Amino acid sequence: MPFKILLRDVKESQKSIGTDKGLAKIGDPVVNLAYSIAKSLKLSQDSSNNRVYRTGNKVSKEVLSSALKLALMRNFAKTRADSHDMADSVEAIIAYAWLKDIITIDQMISFLAENLQGNLKDRKEEINAAIIAFKNLLLHVKKSLPIN
Amino acid sequence: MPFKILLRDVKESQKSIGTDKGLAKIGDPVVNLAYSIAKSLKLSQDSSNNRVYRTGNKVSKEVLSSALKLALMRNFAKTRADSHDMADSVEAIIAYAWLKDIITIDQMISFLAENLQGNLKDRKEEINAAIIAFKNLLLHVKKSLPIN
Repeated sequence: MPFKILLRDVKESQKSIGTDKGLAKIGDPVVNLAYSIAKSLKLSQDSSNNRVYRTGNKVSKEVLSSALKLALMRNFAKTRADSHDMADSVEAIIAYAWLKDIITIDQMISFLAENLQGNLKDRKEEINAAIIAFKNLLLHVKKSLPIN
Repeated sequence: MPFKILLRDVKESQKSIGTDKGLAKIGDPVVNLAYSIAKSLKLSQDSSNNRVYRTGNKVSKEVLSSALKLALMRNFAKTRADSHDMADSVEAIIAYAWLKDIITIDQMISFLAENLQGNLKDRKEEINAAIIAFKNLLLHVKKSLPIN
């Protein structure tokens, strides 16, 4: 990744990564892109009539903050963080993992697609599926993140 | 690219690619991500005090539609397309080029960063720089797109 220079001033701590506003901004389109393609792949694979789906989806703050809590990674967020702050932390973590070469966007997409279970056409099922998939993704990259 | 399956039903014509709503949805975060990182790199490189910039930027419809017109690629858009339609066409073209393995996201970022000229801190200069950079990117991928 020739873009590691963008991490030059980020301290190697969970809190520094999870509360970096710039990383959260970068992570926003990464998260939305990865989820859109993963969902498109899953819907296309599950289609009974061979239909291809190309969908663009914004992942809600609620999905991302729930994933952070379920992954027991709230400590990456600032103290007394609300849903919005916690979602920003997820975006920052994902951006960091990407820029740091812990995971490529292609790998993120494949990982999310494999972890998206259930009927994504049902709104409620989709939300739960997305929460679990992002929780698993967070736990997956966590192994390569600073331990404190 | 293991995601080529998502292009299975897209006809190999400029108009089919440029007017595909699903491709436009996928292209939206690709465009925003690529531009955000390219701009962050350029600002960081140009910084006199070694500051690192991490910025997240949505690219406006006006920038994208101007780039399409300057690249003389309006024919990818629908007849009587407005700015919004033309911006969608740019997003669709970029998504197609990515899914089709014509260009990776990393290559897109490097290409845009190299083509972003001028002082990006000046809003007007930034808009012009972004239009030119996207025009050049479109012309670059056009060589590998269907000729009709």
